[in-house]
Amino acid sequence: MRKVHVIGIGAGDPGQLTLQAVGAMRSTDVFFLLDKGEAKADLVRLRRDMLETHLPRGTYRVVEARDPERDRTAGGAAYSPAVGDWRSARAEVYERLIAEELGEDDSGAFLVWGDPALYDSTLGILQEVLERGTVAFEYEVVPGVSSVSALAARHRTGLNRVARPVQITTGRRLAEGFPEGVDDVVVMLDAHQVFRRYAAQDVDIYWGAYLGTPDEILVSGPVAEAAPRIERLRAEARERKGWIMDTYLLRRRAGER
Amino acid sequence: MRKVHVIGIGAGDPGQLTLQAVGAMRSTDVFFLLDKGEAKADLVRLRRDMLETHLPRGTYRVVEARDPERDRTAGGAAYSPAVGDWRSARAEVYERLIAEELGEDDSGAFLVWGDPALYDSTLGILQEVLERGTVAFEYEVVPGVSSVSALAARHRTGLNRVARPVQITTGRRLAEGFPEGVDDVVVMLDAHQVFRRYAAQDVDIYWGAYLGTPDEILVSGPVAEAAPRIERLRAEARERKGWIMDTYLLRRRAGER
Ligand SMILES: C[S@@+](CC[C@H](N)C(=O)[O-])C[C@H]1O[C@@H](n2cnc3c(N)ncnc32)[C@H](O)[C@@H]1O
Ligand SMILES: C[S@@+](CC[C@H](N)C(=O)[O-])C[C@H]1O[C@@H](n2cnc3c(N)ncnc32)[C@H](O)[C@@H]1O
Repeated sequence: MRKVHVIGIGAGDPGQLTLQAVGAMRSTDVFFLLDKGEAKADLVRLRRDMLETHLPRGTYRVVEARDPERDRTAGGAAYSPAVGDWRSARAEVYERLIAEELGEDDSGAFLVWGDPALYDSTLGILQEVLERGTVAFEYEVVPGVSSVSALAARHRTGLNRVARPVQITTGRRLAEGFPEGVDDVVVMLDAHQVFRRYAAQDVDIYWGAYLGTPDEILVSGPVAEAAPRIERLRAEARERKGWIMDTYLLRRRAGER
Repeated sequence: MRKVHVIGIGAGDPGQLTLQAVGAMRSTDVFFLLDKGEAKADLVRLRRDMLETHLPRGTYRVVEARDPERDRTAGGAAYSPAVGDWRSARAEVYERLIAEELGEDDSGAFLVWGDPALYDSTLGILQEVLERGTVAFEYEVVPGVSSVSALAARHRTGLNRVARPVQITTGRRLAEGFPEGVDDVVVMLDAHQVFRRYAAQDVDIYWGAYLGTPDEILVSGPVAEAAPRIERLRAEARERKGWIMDTYLLRRRAGER
């Protein structure tokens, strides 16, 4: 039976690989590296470096494939369907990779950024491929250090406060308002710096870009003070590298609701 | 300057250690193992095994200390103050460990279960020790794989659904009601199986106990069907081992709100 490993590789620092991830990589015959647009060169390179560091040369094969583009023009209400179509297109690619590149007894792996459980579509796509029923395989997930954990570690802060909840959400959702019932919110996938709208409230921000990489940038403080700095640093870095990956924790100060 | 490492060690599987965590362990002179009641023997043993596996014998020292008990009789509104007192009592212990067991140029480490950013007091305590000002030290945090990531990996599911948020909360909070504005909720620190109250709603549960250890138990399905099984397995395991560590994801089925 074909076997597929979905391996969380951490969010940027190659030291975030777990021993289990290295073990799963060592028992993999074929690595599927999917190329995802702008950040591609850097992120594919990081994965190739990991393989070269941890696996004996000649013991594995790498297959690069083009990941179908998402229709980013479809905003608002159209968001889910566009994601749906995109998923099916990706399912076709994954299906072909597994069927054509893996022999009956081979194992393949997808090296997933951060933790495969957070804002990543690999598991959903594999489930879809299985449901189509044209290729059979077993799969297993190796958890990873998420960018959320990396962010908190670099700022040396907890995500939750004592006995309180924390919510993880997207920039798009935050644009609809500060989530109900929580004072600690981690925001991912925010292309529009939605945190700026909390400058007038008693909210602190812990922001990080390119966490765990040599380009890492950290800023923290009350949103009112930190926001202009983040805007400037973010624009400069984005200009310089051509892409940016950033995430942040918003923390409403205690007793301020 | 004294240096303290706060190292996330993963949530049970020794393979969840990151390369960075192993590196930080190798540069540590003194490990502080704090004994926390019931689960102590097993959890202290797991940490000792990690040290023995990854560090050359004779290159480090282990100091065990008794972690002050929390006043668990103080429930409800008294929760925060009791936690506060407990924190100060712990701060005294940590302060003494750092001041008395670390030489001026030594480095010490706390091996934190899972990820140090989730429902763990080590960072808050170290901050408190620094604020007291009696002993100076630098500290650094190494993120870890949380039990939340481990849970999702074992169930091969994402934590969030596409473009939707996820909340991480406690059993105590869940007892106040299903959180507002989210359909995916991870619950930790639940001694009372609060999930049972969602049996009449269209909610699925992904439950895991002793994740990543040889005693691991997984159950998933609609709460109505899974709850009785979980109750039985949980009671049996708890009886057998004398302690339990479990967490779960509650997922409201789409279109059911
Ligand atoms: C598609 S999600 C994938 C998240 C990933 N599965 C994880 O566990 O971190 C991508 C988002 O993660 C965040 N992110 C991932 N890596 C990051 C890094 N090294 N620094 C800052 N943010 C990062 C950013 O918010 C980015 O928009
Ligand atoms: C004090 S919190 C510490 C969490 C830890 N810092 C983490 O990142 O997983 C302890 C709670 O974590 C959860 N937990 C930790 N390890 C677990 C495991 N191996 N299996 C199931 N639940 C676990 C349980 O809900 C437990 O009540």
